[in-house]
Amino acid sequence: MIPIDLRSDTVTKPTPAMLDAMFRAPVGDDVYGEDPTVNELQAYGASMFGMEAGLFCPSGTMTNQIAIKLHTQPLSEVICEKNSHIYLYEAGGIAFNSSASVKLLDGIRGKITAKQVEAAINPDNVHYPVSSLVSLENTCNKGGGAYYTLKEIAAISKVCKKHRLPLHLDGARVFNALAASGEEAKDYSKYFNTISVCLSKGLGAPVGSLLLGPKRMIEQAKRVRKALGGGWRQAGYLAAAGLYALHHHIDRLQEDHQKAALIGKALEKAAYVAEVMPVETNIVICRLAAHVTTKQFLEYLGERGILASDFGPQLIRFVTHLDLTDEAVEILVPTIAAYKA
Amino acid sequence: MIPIDLRSDTVTKPTPAMLDAMFRAPVGDDVYGEDPTVNELQAYGASMFGMEAGLFCPSGTMTNQIAIKLHTQPLSEVICEKNSHIYLYEAGGIAFNSSASVKLLDGIRGKITAKQVEAAINPDNVHYPVSSLVSLENTCNKGGGAYYTLKEIAAISKVCKKHRLPLHLDGARVFNALAASGEEAKDYSKYFNTISVCLSKGLGAPVGSLLLGPKRMIEQAKRVRKALGGGWRQAGYLAAAGLYALHHHIDRLQEDHQKAALIGKALEKAAYVAEVMPVETNIVICRLAAHVTTKQFLEYLGERGILASDFGPQLIRFVTHLDLTDEAVEILVPTIAAYKA
Amino acid sequence: MIPIDLRSDTVTKPTPAMLDAMFRAPVGDDVYGEDPTVNELQAYGASMFGMEAGLFCPSGTMTNQIAIKLHTQPLSEVICEKNSHIYLYEAGGIAFNSSASVKLLDGIRGKITAKQVEAAINPDNVHYPVSSLVSLENTCNKGGGAYYTLKEIAAISKVCKKHRLPLHLDGARVFNALAASGEEAKDYSKYFNTISVCLSKGLGAPVGSLLLGPKRMIEQAKRVRKALGGGWRQAGYLAAAGLYALHHHIDRLQEDHQKAALIGKALEKAAYVAEVMPVETNIVICRLAAHVTTKQFLEYLGERGILASDFGPQLIRFVTHLDLTDEAVEILVPTIAAYKA
Amino acid sequence: MIPIDLRSDTVTKPTPAMLDAMFRAPVGDDVYGEDPTVNELQAYGASMFGMEAGLFCPSGTMTNQIAIKLHTQPLSEVICEKNSHIYLYEAGGIAFNSSASVKLLDGIRGKITAKQVEAAINPDNVHYPVSSLVSLENTCNKGGGAYYTLKEIAAISKVCKKHRLPLHLDGARVFNALAASGEEAKDYSKYFNTISVCLSKGLGAPVGSLLLGPKRMIEQAKRVRKALGGGWRQAGYLAAAGLYALHHHIDRLQEDHQKAALIGKALEKAAYVAEVMPVETNIVICRLAAHVTTKQFLEYLGERGILASDFGPQLIRFVTHLDLTDEAVEILVPTIAAYKA
Repeated sequence: MIPIDLRSDTVTKPTPAMLDAMFRAPVGDDVYGEDPTVNELQAYGASMFGMEAGLFCPSGTMTNQIAIKLHTQPLSEVICEKNSHIYLYEAGGIAFNSSASVKLLDGIRGKITAKQVEAAINPDNVHYPVSSLVSLENTCNKGGGAYYTLKEIAAISKVCKKHRLPLHLDGARVFNALAASGEEAKDYSKYFNTISVCLSKGLGAPVGSLLLGPKRMIEQAKRVRKALGGGWRQAGYLAAAGLYALHHHIDRLQEDHQKAALIGKALEKAAYVAEVMPVETNIVICRLAAHVTTKQFLEYLGERGILASDFGPQLIRFVTHLDLTDEAVEILVPTIAAYKA
Repeated sequence: MIPIDLRSDTVTKPTPAMLDAMFRAPVGDDVYGEDPTVNELQAYGASMFGMEAGLFCPSGTMTNQIAIKLHTQPLSEVICEKNSHIYLYEAGGIAFNSSASVKLLDGIRGKITAKQVEAAINPDNVHYPVSSLVSLENTCNKGGGAYYTLKEIAAISKVCKKHRLPLHLDGARVFNALAASGEEAKDYSKYFNTISVCLSKGLGAPVGSLLLGPKRMIEQAKRVRKALGGGWRQAGYLAAAGLYALHHHIDRLQEDHQKAALIGKALEKAAYVAEVMPVETNIVICRLAAHVTTKQFLEYLGERGILASDFGPQLIRFVTHLDLTDEAVEILVPTIAAYKA
Repeated sequence: MIPIDLRSDTVTKPTPAMLDAMFRAPVGDDVYGEDPTVNELQAYGASMFGMEAGLFCPSGTMTNQIAIKLHTQPLSEVICEKNSHIYLYEAGGIAFNSSASVKLLDGIRGKITAKQVEAAINPDNVHYPVSSLVSLENTCNKGGGAYYTLKEIAAISKVCKKHRLPLHLDGARVFNALAASGEEAKDYSKYFNTISVCLSKGLGAPVGSLLLGPKRMIEQAKRVRKALGGGWRQAGYLAAAGLYALHHHIDRLQEDHQKAALIGKALEKAAYVAEVMPVETNIVICRLAAHVTTKQFLEYLGERGILASDFGPQLIRFVTHLDLTDEAVEILVPTIAAYKA
Repeated sequence: MIPIDLRSDTVTKPTPAMLDAMFRAPVGDDVYGEDPTVNELQAYGASMFGMEAGLFCPSGTMTNQIAIKLHTQPLSEVICEKNSHIYLYEAGGIAFNSSASVKLLDGIRGKITAKQVEAAINPDNVHYPVSSLVSLENTCNKGGGAYYTLKEIAAISKVCKKHRLPLHLDGARVFNALAASGEEAKDYSKYFNTISVCLSKGLGAPVGSLLLGPKRMIEQAKRVRKALGGGWRQAGYLAAAGLYALHHHIDRLQEDHQKAALIGKALEKAAYVAEVMPVETNIVICRLAAHVTTKQFLEYLGERGILASDFGPQLIRFVTHLDLTDEAVEILVPTIAAYKA
């Protein structure tokens, strides 16, 4: 039994065509800036988002952490939502890598507002760290895949510009946001100073993320990447997968969203589910009724070859992706329906 | 007009008797451990709380930050209330000095519960920083001077011991807590691994705080203090004031609490006040009604020689202390009553 | 003209057989510990050196920096040679990632002695950071590829054990050291607490290094790797190249050493060369005579399709490797001989 | 027997007149910037050196560490002599507080040259930290009190300005340097961006140092001081001693130098002394002959009530100061002469 793995969209494996692209890729020593495939990926990714330059790194955590480092100094404070990936899931990296403090905002489904951001800026007083960066996550993982519209982003950007605060995007799933909103990647460059884009989630590449930003800042990012140990050599094999994904795997993200919607509907009908967060993209989070434990439900699924994630007290997360077939969804939906708590 | 200064209990100046004690103090080079008055203060402070050893430092921020440093490592997380002084008012020092992350709990008037603490401990998973320290503040400054009872502390300590988490006390105003609860300082040693005690707040000494803890840890604290630049030389003049305060200024704290209660009552009757936090010790925080701004009210008071603090949106804080005379309270109460917004 | 690239042994590209092994590798999500090829590489690498466990990372800088992090705390000091890669070429990572100080020893060709290590240990005094780690580099890059024998290592290890100091090996080119000394990798486990091994230098894999150490420490290393952004997903493609290299590219390192010896001899005869460091492995460093600049000589070589490195005032470095053919050496030697300064 | 304490010039105690000045000082809450004596000291100290502003801190380590923090960022490198106090005796504070790397120059008696500084600046390459600060120490403690002339400083400053590197002075004993050179404090402002001046060494105040610099930078320094825990309250008592020292204890430093010269001469004649560093100010360092241990010699002195410092292998340091009477020197000189090793 091959498992139906919905724990994350990071679990995908390259398709034969992607694998073929990887092993035909010309490579070189990227520490010397000489890997042609890495260079192509960086330039292409930057152009998609209307940014000047890009840097290919081993993970989205690294691209986020480098951006935070570049925008802050020790004694700085980062303003973000309380459930942000950068705060919650990067091993305390904001404090570890940047010695920066955090101002955690109470968002709705992971999303914060321009008004909240403005109220969170510290006055100039030696008792407080210096508000130095605002970071958004789009889509919001802990928010069940909720996305920001350009209009919401523009309002936050306006506050940031007024207070000379840079704005970073953790775009681990930014293509899911764009697929759902129908908006253009290029328009992001008007609002964000730096953007992190994951290639190994919904896009299906095996490894890597891009940090996009102004040329001067990307030059500095290389030094930070070196210090973190992210300077790799012939990374072109992985970059080729990323390039393939940017060319071929964006249009199909709608399919993942449709599958997520089907899973969401199945859960809504289930008596053992107290609540399903609105399904906007490829993430489905449901809260189990009080008489069921996450452990019980995950065991039930596991025995039937289905893997999902324990996502906190009474919460279960399902993530759809490239490797989730229509057949798998046909098994999954009735299996969800059949559970008796 | 000498101002009636209620901005903080840090504004007090030594009494003639304290000043006399300061200038008779024998001193020596404390970096070599040779200042007899510093040594006496450290030993006496430790004995009061039943702790093994003490270290005299220039501020409560330094004693707190040293304790946090000793209990954590980079990749650690500190569990504390969201309005804790250590998080809010120490310039982002937890991240700056210790590169540690924070888990901010939603307390009631600054106080957290054993249950909240237990739920906040991270599971052993590489995505999360390691829960390494719980810190309480007693009394709670932002909580309007609310205090923990020993029973509440004991419950939190039990959770900490179960999970092998050290428990630190930010006791900037711990003597106010003890004065209000009628409990014994010595009993704190059963629950806390380290205690920070300020001598320059309610106790009226000009400068300094004590870090109390196990002997081995206080030895390590000296190295951290050195690195922070807190190794001072003939500090005995200041230590003498601290000793005088511990001997003569504890019993009188009840007077400060009574004066705070009078101020609280005056504010409760005022039409321009929406709410007064329960007055438990020497801090009074009130929320102004929507039609008054903090600026207007502080200007009204200022013109009458009364200083108080803007404490956030619509909030005003008054702190009573050693230098606030009965006469000043007699002026203050009718002045509060007379304001027409 | 395909360049004859002797700038570093990091510039190699996979052989067809290595590429084939990569292409066929089973992969999985390594953040979940589920990449079978990564797991195999980690286990195999550890077993080669007699260590308990291994962790596959994007670079040798990362494996070194993680080890330093695990062995130190802020207020620690790392003892190493003044030209160590960890100090000189990792972007100040010891201070950046670990907030640790350095004690830089004056070695001979990059090598330090047990006696020097013992003299460098700080006394227990608050003015000094705490000596916490000794790190050796084998072979020594800046030392012209000089290597430590097991006997020398054993003597340093003895001092470390006496003072309870962990000993780390930066084994970027450890297989070159072993090829030259004829000693056994397994014997290293008697002396080193942690070992970093590069797969992308002499071994010819495209990307990656292994950190080897005790199981408990490798578990902690995963959290540090996560915080640094080194947690990657389907890294098995790269791990497969590393495995292939460990199986097939070790025995051939002698060839690189022989080619380096030929280059060394050619340089020794050249009038424009003041000195050639003894050639022990695959690195050749020469000092140019005063009347030649490194720029002139590198330009001369460059025009003939030969790339080498400017290695400091008057110094040139050549590194031999897997992609340097016999034909290339036959071009190189007379080209070196023919230069007229 | 009152000891004749030559371990350091930090051991002095206030004179009756200084104590009287302390006792009469008006004070206030310095965290609010309201201590008039602290403010006067800061303004007066700044004016002496022709700098814009000053900040009074508990130690010279703190003023140095704050300056380093302000001039660097993580990934920066500080250029200084290998025996600098900032590197050697501040508990690894450069790495601890600023996460900055160090480039350690091999000076002569603690002094470095403009040429050395220029050669030490890193090229712009991601492998290296960014050269960000040059720091001098004047006089040089480990150099036996050697001092820089303005001409030497000017040459270093010129290199710094050419490369846009700030220049910091650790002026723990800067008044000794000025007393010896006969140069003007005001001229320092042409060359240094920030200056740290100790009041508790040769000047005889009990506690404290001044950081001097541009107004904007001193404002930032207050935030760093707060984070380090150096924000103190009624520090005016200590500031008064510093002011008294600046007014009354500078002219007399020549006396300390004359006494040091007498001690130096006595040591030069002694058979058990291999070498005495040239005595330029108030520090005397001698190297014992091979047949004597520092322990033996210090015990001999100790039994006669004389305290000096073990200053490394075979080295002994004597420091003269305000509390060293003529009578004490009359005892000391023959005691030195009488020792038979």
